[in-house]
Amino acid sequence: MTERTWLPVPPLSDFPIENLPFGVARPAHGTPRVVTRLGDHLLDLPAAGIAPDLTARPTLNALMESGRGAEVRARAAEVLTGPERDDAVHAVGDVEVLLPIQVGDYVDFYSSIHHATNLGRIFRPEGEPLPANWRHLPIGYHGRAGTIVVSGTRIARPSGLVPDPIDGVPRLTPTRALDFELEVAFLVGGPTATHIRPDDAGGHVFGVALCNDWSARDIQSFEYQPLGPNLAKSFATTISPWVVTLEALRPYLVAAPTQEPEPDPYLRAAKPWALDLHLEIDRNGATIAETNFSAMYWTFAQQLAHITVNGATTRSGDVFASGTVSGPNPGERGSLIEQIADATADNYLADGEVVTLRGWCGGDGPDRPRIGFGEASGTVYPAVEEV
Amino acid sequence: MTERTWLPVPPLSDFPIENLPFGVARPAHGTPRVVTRLGDHLLDLPAAGIAPDLTARPTLNALMESGRGAEVRARAAEVLTGPERDDAVHAVGDVEVLLPIQVGDYVDFYSSIHHATNLGRIFRPEGEPLPANWRHLPIGYHGRAGTIVVSGTRIARPSGLVPDPIDGVPRLTPTRALDFELEVAFLVGGPTATHIRPDDAGGHVFGVALCNDWSARDIQSFEYQPLGPNLAKSFATTISPWVVTLEALRPYLVAAPTQEPEPDPYLRAAKPWALDLHLEIDRNGATIAETNFSAMYWTFAQQLAHITVNGATTRSGDVFASGTVSGPNPGERGSLIEQIADATADNYLADGEVVTLRGWCGGDGPDRPRIGFGEASGTVYPAVEEV
Repeated sequence: MTERTWLPVPPLSDFPIENLPFGVARPAHGTPRVVTRLGDHLLDLPAAGIAPDLTARPTLNALMESGRGAEVRARAAEVLTGPERDDAVHAVGDVEVLLPIQVGDYVDFYSSIHHATNLGRIFRPEGEPLPANWRHLPIGYHGRAGTIVVSGTRIARPSGLVPDPIDGVPRLTPTRALDFELEVAFLVGGPTATHIRPDDAGGHVFGVALCNDWSARDIQSFEYQPLGPNLAKSFATTISPWVVTLEALRPYLVAAPTQEPEPDPYLRAAKPWALDLHLEIDRNGATIAETNFSAMYWTFAQQLAHITVNGATTRSGDVFASGTVSGPNPGERGSLIEQIADATADNYLADGEVVTLRGWCGGDGPDRPRIGFGEASGTVYPAVEEV
Repeated sequence: MTERTWLPVPPLSDFPIENLPFGVARPAHGTPRVVTRLGDHLLDLPAAGIAPDLTARPTLNALMESGRGAEVRARAAEVLTGPERDDAVHAVGDVEVLLPIQVGDYVDFYSSIHHATNLGRIFRPEGEPLPANWRHLPIGYHGRAGTIVVSGTRIARPSGLVPDPIDGVPRLTPTRALDFELEVAFLVGGPTATHIRPDDAGGHVFGVALCNDWSARDIQSFEYQPLGPNLAKSFATTISPWVVTLEALRPYLVAAPTQEPEPDPYLRAAKPWALDLHLEIDRNGATIAETNFSAMYWTFAQQLAHITVNGATTRSGDVFASGTVSGPNPGERGSLIEQIADATADNYLADGEVVTLRGWCGGDGPDRPRIGFGEASGTVYPAVEEV
């Protein structure tokens, strides 16, 4: 496929011509603008004359809201397969890759039955692991939109109140239980909407990215009852910079697992909304877990239907994340708290550790091009001294 | 005091010359712009030539971020006490009063000890009413920023999953337990900040408004474990349109109640951060509850310190709300769920009912001008038919 374009595309690249994700980059002597990525190069969309009213901007929001994403992506493909346009190309290493969107609302779900069961056992060992509502609705809560950061941003160890192990008194302390959560984030596009039906979700989702919902388990354990996690997660959430379009992912949409009991009609879908997406967690250079996103109990289409069934409206730039993606077996867990319970990990994150999420669809056959996501990576820094 | 200005100010107005809150209004044949209110008139700040770079805008965000609020307010006071400027004045009835800010993140707290105790008894009758963490930290969660609406916006009855009273199966249904919550909202200004100390809170809070955190108790009861409320509250949150500046409220800052146990050092303040603010709830024209904001256990200064102690950053336009304001006695409860438990109310909100929050400081002595907030009002409309 790569012979069709005049840019080199390395073998096994996440970004062949079939992908063309959107992102935002700042060239060395320029302002932020919308780009697409092919191999290790970026096509500068305003420099290529493609919809500058939407692309000569520091975020994707205007493009997302416009409904013209598919048209802009098709024009980028034309340029990349037409005559050479070196004037509109940057090497990815020559630019600063930025957070691609201004985030509206951020909702984080809890939609892996394996993860929810594992965490229920750990946090509520005396009760049923799965909450009574879990199989009836995709549980989710609002996270902090203003601290969503792009891959590569430093993660300072957060502090919060944790009961002292000796005297039980809660004291402010840097977390001793810093964790990651492997998630997949969906980015909303199009005009404001509400009462979205699951089978209409495709018209409201602009694209998809990887997401690390960093979590401080000791802070979470003390604070989360009764209103849910707050400081345990609000310090930072890392997303990958390349927004892979739903259009590029469409060949990899597959049937979701059977749900038992059958959900309420507002959550039922006829179309396949699970995504056959291979996911990996890299800790300091070693792959420590692999799983597949297709096993999630609740799909993104159901999640979007759920958060709008009460009349709540969406905006372009809203982000909703899947919740931790865990498979049924050790080696497939998306968080350290589960890996430690499995004895597949020994400890939470220390300062200096690097966590990198990767994921891709396809790449396993001639008609299955690799549609990759790049990386969502972060390095842990020491806690900020109290001032 | 009103003799100093050339505009009439009715007796008992919420908006004497000492108040001068900020808002955003759209004149009949104009674009939205920043205004201040005096009595029943608005001074059109860009028309008066006051900081048009910050005031000829559809939201207060630029003004809030600039750090120039006090200067702009002082210039408005000069114009309103100088020569008449009829060219820069609108009657409040002649304009459309708009949501004054683009909301960043919205955090809702739970900081009234009376409210938290009452709700603990209702939701968790088998346990201690106050959660174990409650006296150690101001519990809060993130709400939906995109559905914060201005006073006067219709409130459509939300639907959500509620267990059927006969067979126990959760089904999508319009809520049968629509409630209000009387709250006070704080609006963040200034540059991005983190690790804010309580005694520095004044430099990060631009102003204050009334807030009704509409709640569907039956939806909440089923969904809220373990990650907190979501659809029960995300459909709408009403705020009053006039942002009363912390400067105007400064004479009414008073000492907060004693906290037992003493909180961790990061939550301790030397300055008085409680607010002597009288609050009322009007249901269909009758006052059904009155209380005072000064009895809140956790102050807004502590709340702001708490949500940034983990390194989370603030942005101008962030909103954080107090949680329901309830006093210790029947007649002082800020929600129907408490009033029904007290037998001071018979039922939740029916379609067509109107709930209006009002509040003011002072007005009870010659050196205590009334600094009022206007209204946060909403009328309940029938649920939207499923499409």
